[in-house]
Amino acid sequence: MAKQDKDAPKRPTARLPKGMRDIGPAELRQTQAMLDKIRAVYERYGFEPLETPAFEYTDALGKFLPDSDRPNEGVFSFQDEDEQWLSLRYDLTAPLARYVAENFQDMPKPFRRYATGSVFRNEKPGPGRFRQFTQFDADTVGAESVAADAEMCMLAADTLEALGISRGQYVIKVNNRKLLDGLREVISLNGSEHNARWLTVMRALDKFDRLGIDGVKALLGPGRKDESGDFTKGAELDTAAIIAVTSIFAAASNIDEKLAQLGERLGASAVGQEGLAELQTIWSLVSAAGYGDGRVAIDPSVVRGLEYYTGPVFEAELLIPATDEKGNPVRFGSVGGGGRYDDLVARFTGQKVPATGFSIGVSRLQAALNLIGRAPAPTLGPVVVTVMDKDQIASYQKFVQTLREDGIRAELYLGNPKKFGRQLEYADKRGSPVVVIQGSNEREAGQVILKDLVEGAQAAAAIKDNKEWKETRAAQVTVPEAELVSAVREILARHS
Amino acid sequence: MAKQDKDAPKRPTARLPKGMRDIGPAELRQTQAMLDKIRAVYERYGFEPLETPAFEYTDALGKFLPDSDRPNEGVFSFQDEDEQWLSLRYDLTAPLARYVAENFQDMPKPFRRYATGSVFRNEKPGPGRFRQFTQFDADTVGAESVAADAEMCMLAADTLEALGISRGQYVIKVNNRKLLDGLREVISLNGSEHNARWLTVMRALDKFDRLGIDGVKALLGPGRKDESGDFTKGAELDTAAIIAVTSIFAAASNIDEKLAQLGERLGASAVGQEGLAELQTIWSLVSAAGYGDGRVAIDPSVVRGLEYYTGPVFEAELLIPATDEKGNPVRFGSVGGGGRYDDLVARFTGQKVPATGFSIGVSRLQAALNLIGRAPAPTLGPVVVTVMDKDQIASYQKFVQTLREDGIRAELYLGNPKKFGRQLEYADKRGSPVVVIQGSNEREAGQVILKDLVEGAQAAAAIKDNKEWKETRAAQVTVPEAELVSAVREILARHS
Repeated sequence: MAKQDKDAPKRPTARLPKGMRDIGPAELRQTQAMLDKIRAVYERYGFEPLETPAFEYTDALGKFLPDSDRPNEGVFSFQDEDEQWLSLRYDLTAPLARYVAENFQDMPKPFRRYATGSVFRNEKPGPGRFRQFTQFDADTVGAESVAADAEMCMLAADTLEALGISRGQYVIKVNNRKLLDGLREVISLNGSEHNARWLTVMRALDKFDRLGIDGVKALLGPGRKDESGDFTKGAELDTAAIIAVTSIFAAASNIDEKLAQLGERLGASAVGQEGLAELQTIWSLVSAAGYGDGRVAIDPSVVRGLEYYTGPVFEAELLIPATDEKGNPVRFGSVGGGGRYDDLVARFTGQKVPATGFSIGVSRLQAALNLIGRAPAPTLGPVVVTVMDKDQIASYQKFVQTLREDGIRAELYLGNPKKFGRQLEYADKRGSPVVVIQGSNEREAGQVILKDLVEGAQAAAAIKDNKEWKETRAAQVTVPEAELVSAVREILARHS
Repeated sequence: MAKQDKDAPKRPTARLPKGMRDIGPAELRQTQAMLDKIRAVYERYGFEPLETPAFEYTDALGKFLPDSDRPNEGVFSFQDEDEQWLSLRYDLTAPLARYVAENFQDMPKPFRRYATGSVFRNEKPGPGRFRQFTQFDADTVGAESVAADAEMCMLAADTLEALGISRGQYVIKVNNRKLLDGLREVISLNGSEHNARWLTVMRALDKFDRLGIDGVKALLGPGRKDESGDFTKGAELDTAAIIAVTSIFAAASNIDEKLAQLGERLGASAVGQEGLAELQTIWSLVSAAGYGDGRVAIDPSVVRGLEYYTGPVFEAELLIPATDEKGNPVRFGSVGGGGRYDDLVARFTGQKVPATGFSIGVSRLQAALNLIGRAPAPTLGPVVVTVMDKDQIASYQKFVQTLREDGIRAELYLGNPKKFGRQLEYADKRGSPVVVIQGSNEREAGQVILKDLVEGAQAAAAIKDNKEWKETRAAQVTVPEAELVSAVREILARHS
């Protein structure tokens, strides 16, 4: 390393925090359009917007509590001037629970709200895995009826279709945690002393997509060695228990058959049968509404990682085959999900408040859409009015204003105007469709030159100076000043 | 205090963090509409969107550096797993400087970006003063020309008008820091040993709006005692110096006269005359574009608190008289502002990069708009389909869906349907314009009842049960099921 001059002031390095990213115009415009579409569906379903702060008291967020002197993993935490711990929100549900507990008396019940915003996870970043990302949630609080859950599934389907994902290209899978609780009873793991072991079972079941049935079975039994040779200890279930819990993956020719199979397997488990009945009600509601055509499907293998779910759980999955840059098939995983969580508000009040919600992983869905070739076409840049004569800036500025007043994106070239070629390079880099040029000859004649950069893109790159420019006349027209707007509009229409 | 049961689990209190707030539907919808309008203007000016993370490395944000063991005041700071300090962004300019320094080579230059989002200040909260609020910025980086500053003023004016503030109800004031630097030379405070004293001068000048000329003069001289009796030490300038610096408040019959007066006052100060020349150029550019009609005005008394400005500074001020709830006149202060900051990128690279920007204080502007009676009318709530017979939920759900498919906001009542009056109360609380009702009689006849809640609001409040309901027939119609959508549309049209 080069020796540093000790007297030189120490300058900070301009760098992004680990796991964070900057988002540019094309992606942001696409996100904006997605949020608008999602919002329209959520509004149509009667949800009302609510915005809570980006951070909350750590104890109010729950789940993650900081150690005495170091914030916990998973969240970003800090202390305020009163030494209370605060954490950036890791989802939009925990702040909702705080809001509901705080405002329960005054709210219409059921309370239906939607919310969107950044959430933050202090986790190991990876490719496409960032520490800040966007979610868009709808939740119904205070509705015991599984009609609220059925509605979430329909909402999810309508939202994906509003985002341009055709029917058949996605499925909303529904399951019920009570069904899994029933299987837990069936294999006699229902005492709280078995909590850790049951968690191992759930984790194993959750890996079906990635490991297949054999991998899951290994993890339910003695354990599994992965490709790198690392060994993961299993849940050590016996063969009968493994058969029982893996029945959630069993094939069936239709949903009624699937539910019947599960009913047998759950036997006398009250909670299991209750879960099954709820699932049946949801199925009849979504079917009656027409969503049983493949948009919504019962899938007993859906687990969902988060622990707080207490009833129905949903998962939105894309069915569109995709490959990464290397041509390898890509699994999107779920692009949204949710479920019923009847205990979150009770954390504060001691009183159970039934609640169910659905959350779109906007950032993840957007990445998936781009992978399947739905990336947005870059928008055209602004019309650039170039500066030939520095002392005429006020009149160039006027051209810009005339265009803007007509609603056309336009700007004056604000860099050093000495090298004219650089202005064209700038316009090119901005994706500008048209540049406006006026030298002294044109000014005297009351005219402007319009250069069509989309047509003349290649020619423009080669033009280095004013003189050469004058000799080239590719893709350009000369029009009277008074026709500036209409002539620009004509070129824009050609390229939109 | 009541003695706590030691065995009871300790529950967190549901509470908002200090200085934070929840934002409800009416305000959020208004914010959304404001952001859309601002975005449209910024886009028309050729700016491109950019989103940077909510937090940055503290040293990259600059200005505020954490102590060895406690984060600094002013910002919210925390450490990552590598023990590097991170801070929530306190504005959108410092992250832009980091972005520019990091990506300078690849950017089109000048670089024109807009950004919006929450910023965070770890400051003492007060009425209407929160620790998280929204800004909307446009910046041009790499343009030395004051044409870029002139454009910012026009952008500011166009933006306020797009937000519904009429011409004459606002003014964009422009000044130049160099002019103040010139006055500093004139009163011989230009050595760096006078930095602290000059800062006291600037702070005093910045208080003109609040304290008037006498208050400012006291703070420039020996000091000032406020109403509470507290004494603030002054800058201890002599009379001649006080006359010189307060010349920025001098009245003039027009802007040319004002500039001429200042020119005399600045005498031989090179930086002062340079500032004046820049101001003159800006004035001629905005005048040529027609914005000299009162939309933009030269005002040498504009100081702007932030220290990083190096040239032109702007401030957007509302001129609409307003009073608070107690009828006292309210000063809005600036609802936006900005200026030229040629040193921010140099912090990283050592190389000066000219830059100028304008920032709308969206939260503050929105509060001001509401104070002058521009608060949004609450939107109508969704159509509520009520549940008379629990076993008919699927068919009620179908009504909901029929309405939604036609683009009408609608929802099924998802609470406990036992008390019918409660369903009407719910619809009322939601601001619902219409409820849809179908009992067994209607069902047999293939009909639905539509109750117009806007008309029938008062009657509805009195209805407590099914029986009473049946006896009341205020503001309701019975229509065939097939006419559900058109009949609802008719009622909606009556109230929109």
